[in-house]
Amino acid sequence: MIFLDMRTVVHFSNISSKKLGGVQRRARRHAKTRLEILRAASSVFRKSGYASSGMREIALAADLSTGNLYRYFRSKDEILYFCQDGTLDRLRSALVTARKARGPLSARLRDLAAAHVLCLIGEVEGSAAHIEEGELPRAMRTAILKKRDAYERGVRALVASGMQRGELRHGDATIVTRAFLGALNWSAHWFRPEGSQSPAEIAQVVADYAVGGLAGDGARSKGRQI
Amino acid sequence: MIFLDMRTVVHFSNISSKKLGGVQRRARRHAKTRLEILRAASSVFRKSGYASSGMREIALAADLSTGNLYRYFRSKDEILYFCQDGTLDRLRSALVTARKARGPLSARLRDLAAAHVLCLIGEVEGSAAHIEEGELPRAMRTAILKKRDAYERGVRALVASGMQRGELRHGDATIVTRAFLGALNWSAHWFRPEGSQSPAEIAQVVADYAVGGLAGDGARSKGRQI
Repeated sequence: MIFLDMRTVVHFSNISSKKLGGVQRRARRHAKTRLEILRAASSVFRKSGYASSGMREIALAADLSTGNLYRYFRSKDEILYFCQDGTLDRLRSALVTARKARGPLSARLRDLAAAHVLCLIGEVEGSAAHIEEGELPRAMRTAILKKRDAYERGVRALVASGMQRGELRHGDATIVTRAFLGALNWSAHWFRPEGSQSPAEIAQVVADYAVGGLAGDGARSKGRQI
Repeated sequence: MIFLDMRTVVHFSNISSKKLGGVQRRARRHAKTRLEILRAASSVFRKSGYASSGMREIALAADLSTGNLYRYFRSKDEILYFCQDGTLDRLRSALVTARKARGPLSARLRDLAAAHVLCLIGEVEGSAAHIEEGELPRAMRTAILKKRDAYERGVRALVASGMQRGELRHGDATIVTRAFLGALNWSAHWFRPEGSQSPAEIAQVVADYAVGGLAGDGARSKGRQI
């Protein structure tokens, strides 16, 4: 056992906190650059298509040297993986909010739908969500599919619960949930950032449509109308 | 001017019709093989992903030699093009039917939606519809996008007309139509032929959901319920 007098401890912890500050600052800077790369890459994928995009083009868009880009990501696949992974994290957090919320399920699913669309078209790197996960190497693909399946199961549980309570129109919860998610996911496919409507406006209209397909006649009047 | 006596004319036209029969038979056989190739290719694309599929694998699936396959299609891109083009022809024909039909727009759009889903998951080569048209060379991509845009404009016109007549819930017809088509198109993404439900059953459930999002409270009761 080592004994330290008070001065040594104070001195030691000062150095340590100073060092820790530097480490944290570097980590924050690193994370910020990674996010900037993901955004730049996402817009390159959108413009040139995933297959035709290269690390050099991504580096150029992110204002980095190609060598520097490789310090952050080992490959284009890894970049796509982190784009999709980050989007799924945000979707999951929207699901947690919908689960915890009170009120009719149509309203909760409406908010979830709007958040979902916003993740895909508002968050720039979310737009990489329209790229088939089939492009990824097997291990990455498996990880993404696992996360996406968990999210979809969570949404389906909300839909099924709404149907059981009679708040939503009765139907095959699995297929209906897939159609619901299709209406939302497709926005990543057709959205163009240069369009006249903001991502937030689009998210509202798509969410209203998507939850309209779920709602029974009774539930419809409880939900928000256009 | 050349004069022919009656016998000559009859003899000549007999030969001609015989030859024509042979030409037609060969053309039919050629078209049939092409369709078989498109179906085989579509299932290869689904299993292996478009990027990883090769002409050799497609030939194997279509039970042809690779050399023979090239007599029908010059490249994998051309095969994908004809898969997507054929699907769009069928979608357009469903749109024509919906335009001509009588009755409330919610019911006509419901039938169109079911036909749309069935084109994507029932017709085997339609499943290639989930592949990004961005994979195609520019000229083919332009042709597909033009045809797809024309179809989407036609659907939007039906939706807008339903909104104007007060048969469908009022909203932004462009975004709502895209969300509607998203619910339908996504089925090509998640459908698995080995699943327990038939394409026809799935098409009904998805169509009911998709038109539910369009329908106002009044129109809803006029449409078919699940």
